[in-house]
Amino acid sequence: MARPEGWRLDRAAYPFSFVTETRFQDLDILGHINNVAMAALFENGRVRFNRSLGLFDRRRAGERWLIAAISINYLAEAHFPDDIEIASGVGHIGTRSWRIDAAAFQNSACVATCETTVVLTGPEGSEPLPDDMLAALTRHMVKQPG
Amino acid sequence: MARPEGWRLDRAAYPFSFVTETRFQDLDILGHINNVAMAALFENGRVRFNRSLGLFDRRRAGERWLIAAISINYLAEAHFPDDIEIASGVGHIGTRSWRIDAAAFQNSACVATCETTVVLTGPEGSEPLPDDMLAALTRHMVKQPG
Amino acid sequence: MARPEGWRLDRAAYPFSFVTETRFQDLDILGHINNVAMAALFENGRVRFNRSLGLFDRRRAGERWLIAAISINYLAEAHFPDDIEIASGVGHIGTRSWRIDAAAFQNSACVATCETTVVLTGPEGSEPLPDDMLAALTRHMVKQPG
Amino acid sequence: MARPEGWRLDRAAYPFSFVTETRFQDLDILGHINNVAMAALFENGRVRFNRSLGLFDRRRAGERWLIAAISINYLAEAHFPDDIEIASGVGHIGTRSWRIDAAAFQNSACVATCETTVVLTGPEGSEPLPDDMLAALTRHMVKQPG
Repeated sequence: MARPEGWRLDRAAYPFSFVTETRFQDLDILGHINNVAMAALFENGRVRFNRSLGLFDRRRAGERWLIAAISINYLAEAHFPDDIEIASGVGHIGTRSWRIDAAAFQNSACVATCETTVVLTGPEGSEPLPDDMLAALTRHMVKQPG
Repeated sequence: MARPEGWRLDRAAYPFSFVTETRFQDLDILGHINNVAMAALFENGRVRFNRSLGLFDRRRAGERWLIAAISINYLAEAHFPDDIEIASGVGHIGTRSWRIDAAAFQNSACVATCETTVVLTGPEGSEPLPDDMLAALTRHMVKQPG
Repeated sequence: MARPEGWRLDRAAYPFSFVTETRFQDLDILGHINNVAMAALFENGRVRFNRSLGLFDRRRAGERWLIAAISINYLAEAHFPDDIEIASGVGHIGTRSWRIDAAAFQNSACVATCETTVVLTGPEGSEPLPDDMLAALTRHMVKQPG
Repeated sequence: MARPEGWRLDRAAYPFSFVTETRFQDLDILGHINNVAMAALFENGRVRFNRSLGLFDRRRAGERWLIAAISINYLAEAHFPDDIEIASGVGHIGTRSWRIDAAAFQNSACVATCETTVVLTGPEGSEPLPDDMLAALTRHMVKQPG
């Protein structure tokens, strides 16, 4: 759980963005956006990102995208009721899984970063990523500075 | 987000345990415990663990324990309505923060592991851990083999 | 939304009971169990009540139990981390729907009551309750004082 | 829990509107917006409505607005990811409480209605609504047809 690299806090590094609302229910007793609520906001941005890949129509019966790991760094407190922008991109592509890198911005500040590892599974377990998935994921990679 | 080491899946490695219910609302459209819901279950176990440390009564005005990072590995699907046991211990102690290592067990299987980094903060930002906190955290370390 | 009748606050009026945990996430910024979280606790008790009816095995393809209405009276503030007991029974049986009456108790006090109207639906919409359902619901009626 | 009157489904009856997102987490295992999630969406619209009243700045120390009752009618299934508009207005003003009437619209259809009774409380319990509150609530009444 090292601190995220500097480029991860740069809005321009991510090919996809979704501006999402905060809800009253996201607040906890400390008066800020709860850490679990932030995970739900990242999930919300991730679902919108997944839909943008154009891969849902080609899903086969029994195909599932399962979350294998999630790692979140909380960089600043986030508040209600201002919106949060979830910026997302593909950070790594493996043979049977891929990693989505995301960052949450509120009022221009990066308040959290998130990495999510997703595994492609079928009725028999994990499966190699087919060519059209590889192509779509490659088109949505983060722009990591050289 | 490497896979957790083997000892992390061993119930006996953790000094504290809390058996928590699953709720219908923890299910998502895939019919299993949602990944964000699992984060909430870990939060629930962590809050109970924190209360067990005996440190709440000595909290000073303005003292807060802020979550700096959370990392979860999802090892198997978890289901409703069976209970989930959250086993917790301190995995690392720094000068101004500490890490809680936890594992979730359902029907004897380890379904997920979680590491949470918590920072001690006061009105001016992060603060060094006082001696009584260091002592309490040390008493609740995980029993790492070797 | 008139106040509930006195018998609704009597634990003995309900044939089924489920003791459920409160979670840290149930708290809102006011420091008490949030009203939506209480709705989720009632849902949790209702799901357990529904499972106790022994009707799930006989469900036909396409059969769904849809919530048509929910009404909750909040009688006292509820708190974390004490458990809440959700007591449930059938309060009314119609031709295509039924009403579940429930009450939430924390530390012996009734903190809320809930009425939920459930409609039996199939592929074509609402359906008459079959005889075995009527029998099971009748066996689980609340004991309303004469 | 009678069915709502016809005017309650008319968008034009409500003086305030807030368009809110649905989230992936609002879905339950049936694939539609869960009934508790709908309660959270209504809460979200209600909080925004409350903020629009211009009464927060004049709140006294210890003043709280407590939810005494909530009643929701579910008229149609709601879905993800389309937005939901929560239209709100004051439906009734009492001496120490008031009722907020709201309706949820998705893709032009009214999917649910909600009535919420809120009580003004201070350190000693419920309190009479002061004149400026009465005036603000009166300015935001629903337009109930003659």
